[in-house]
Amino acid sequence: MATGPRKQFSRRAWLTAASGTAASGLVMTRFDAVKATVQEVPAQSVDPTRVPGRFVSEVGRRAPGEQPRRLVRTLALSSSSRTPLQDLQGTITPSDLHFERHHAGVPDIVAEEHELLVHGMVERPMVFRMSDLRRYPQASRICFIECSGNGGGAYNRNRMPTAISPQQLDGLLSTSEWTGVMLSTILREVGVRPGASWILAEGRDAAVMARSVPLDKAMDDSMLAYGQNGEAIRPEQGYPVRLLLPGWEGNAQVKWLRRIEVSDRPTMTRDETSRYTDPLKDGTARQFSFVMDAKSIITFPSYPYVLPDRGWWEIEGLAWTGRGRITRVEVSTDGGRSWADAVLQPPILSKSTVRFRHLWNWDGRDTVILSRATDETGYVQPTVQQLWDARGEGTSYHHNHQRAWKVASDGSVTFGLGDLV
Amino acid sequence: MATGPRKQFSRRAWLTAASGTAASGLVMTRFDAVKATVQEVPAQSVDPTRVPGRFVSEVGRRAPGEQPRRLVRTLALSSSSRTPLQDLQGTITPSDLHFERHHAGVPDIVAEEHELLVHGMVERPMVFRMSDLRRYPQASRICFIECSGNGGGAYNRNRMPTAISPQQLDGLLSTSEWTGVMLSTILREVGVRPGASWILAEGRDAAVMARSVPLDKAMDDSMLAYGQNGEAIRPEQGYPVRLLLPGWEGNAQVKWLRRIEVSDRPTMTRDETSRYTDPLKDGTARQFSFVMDAKSIITFPSYPYVLPDRGWWEIEGLAWTGRGRITRVEVSTDGGRSWADAVLQPPILSKSTVRFRHLWNWDGRDTVILSRATDETGYVQPTVQQLWDARGEGTSYHHNHQRAWKVASDGSVTFGLGDLV
Repeated sequence: MATGPRKQFSRRAWLTAASGTAASGLVMTRFDAVKATVQEVPAQSVDPTRVPGRFVSEVGRRAPGEQPRRLVRTLALSSSSRTPLQDLQGTITPSDLHFERHHAGVPDIVAEEHELLVHGMVERPMVFRMSDLRRYPQASRICFIECSGNGGGAYNRNRMPTAISPQQLDGLLSTSEWTGVMLSTILREVGVRPGASWILAEGRDAAVMARSVPLDKAMDDSMLAYGQNGEAIRPEQGYPVRLLLPGWEGNAQVKWLRRIEVSDRPTMTRDETSRYTDPLKDGTARQFSFVMDAKSIITFPSYPYVLPDRGWWEIEGLAWTGRGRITRVEVSTDGGRSWADAVLQPPILSKSTVRFRHLWNWDGRDTVILSRATDETGYVQPTVQQLWDARGEGTSYHHNHQRAWKVASDGSVTFGLGDLV
Repeated sequence: MATGPRKQFSRRAWLTAASGTAASGLVMTRFDAVKATVQEVPAQSVDPTRVPGRFVSEVGRRAPGEQPRRLVRTLALSSSSRTPLQDLQGTITPSDLHFERHHAGVPDIVAEEHELLVHGMVERPMVFRMSDLRRYPQASRICFIECSGNGGGAYNRNRMPTAISPQQLDGLLSTSEWTGVMLSTILREVGVRPGASWILAEGRDAAVMARSVPLDKAMDDSMLAYGQNGEAIRPEQGYPVRLLLPGWEGNAQVKWLRRIEVSDRPTMTRDETSRYTDPLKDGTARQFSFVMDAKSIITFPSYPYVLPDRGWWEIEGLAWTGRGRITRVEVSTDGGRSWADAVLQPPILSKSTVRFRHLWNWDGRDTVILSRATDETGYVQPTVQQLWDARGEGTSYHHNHQRAWKVASDGSVTFGLGDLV
């Protein structure tokens, strides 16, 4: 009986699984590929069929050694932690690995004492406790949240990163099933006055984060979210309640929400003037660039993976858009000269991450692989040059251009366009 | 400015949110409703806007007091823990709250040493390590797993439970996003011989759990799952790899999978003869009742909630079927005399749990509320009497009949049909 050495694997399974792609040669695993991080593991010391196992438990735990970690970065009060995109599967981010971005840390809030004031241009200013919010009809939806500064370090001519992982580059992106009450329900309860066109959302952290949001979005699909992946929202994500604006930049989705003021203009807070505004190359600035445009990134192979050999690999990654559904993801394995449609894994949900897959027979030579996403509006993820042409290079927000990985003949994978830029 | 006492809430928000339901009167919360379990909480001692918050962290944690727990039950080696259905939102079960059902506890397995043997009526018997399995094209899907004995204690004439929660009754049900390699890919790799029609799946726990599965299912949507909700599958769910049979009874989805044998008949293991076979009222037995038929349960209001007052409440619950998609859930608030369509929350995925919601204006009198699900095959969740008529009362498997909750005029909620049975 064979123990399945690599070269004995036949083409049969691939020919079917790859939906028609001609398959031959070697197949290596993403597990094999992480040469640099493989640890010596203890052999199984006890035959588990010979001894009773552990009892059941009230709360489960991960297997030893199977603990992915966020990458933390702290600059005085401002801090962030990034989701390990290259380590995860599927689309749902485990709640304790959801990215964080705080301007003054995570406040400790006692939910039972928390109050949300809704006032301004309304008929009946009101204060809601969590027990009040929970009395309204509930809704749940799966969607991504992405920081508008995500990927801001990509393709900066002055300090071009290469040894950078998807987590380091684009880890300010996570996906959850959020639960709460639709903001439109609460705004109907207080009664929005004629002439109102914006709201201000303010957080209860030490930064008192505040952002202006158009009333149209507030009345559309915005949610006051108190649940995340089945249970209470995590402290780092805004416990006990955050504003959820599906598809919009994370910063505007104010956490630890304590106040909503209805008004007839944007408030022009510090958080939307000194930051989160895009300088353009003509010297003007683009303010309120709320929507996260279509984007994708290959998460395997990527840095720090090393491909041990040529042959068949499954390229995979994530695509998402704030404008609805992803309709297409293309993958190039020759630096953008030719493109092939990747397979999109269902369910393809609006304003959520979609996993794409593409089988690739690597010939062992230096090349550049990249992906580009198209959304239901027809928008195509631009090249970095297209983005620079349109906006200049001065902004570090909304860097949604195509990401590329250079695969060297020694199997090492680094970020960048190789000789293309 | 009003602080929003209950009686000041207007009908405006409800009239819209309830999609046309006439709404009036009081609105209470599920938070208010848990009179019995409300604890005194400390008031917020520090204004969180005045002090910097906690730093970011590599792995997040729940807020204090927000730790739902599984309900554990141990009988010598056999043990189970149940998901707290009445405490959860949305559809995804947090991985550490996924139900457990073990016949000899949770084995400790070192993934790097684990081997899966695939043999029997195949061209090329092979042993796969985890690194081998991971080299194949991946797939992810969201689906439920339910123990076939789930709800076996419902409506037993001899010991009718009343003070029993959704967790106690039907908590052997959980939903995850699973990731792995399609079993069909592996079976094509080894080459199934003509004449083969079944597989045997065997686990590496001390019970050496083994079940027979028809080859048709194995080649259809079955998966060798090594991922759960974005990361490595949990030890209690079969780390490092389990068999996933979407829509089929949990017991057949063998955990800690170490062997698959292809054959031309079922193996008739202990686990499918002494157990997991349904005695019928004519004295014969129904074996291999794999598919979990359509089922639903109201999770709010339910025991141990207490409704503090009459008025508007959002009834909610979960529905699921092993035969595809749920197409309809009806709710009765008068003991089954009249029924209204509940709202199904998208996405409605095949072989996954669906959350349903229905607004109810309780008049404060004794009544019985219940739900019934219909799936895409036209199958309607039966009454308990219909199930007894068809099968007799002798089996404790596949108890998918309609669940009912008796709401008393004092607001207490208990399981059962009141005076109806």
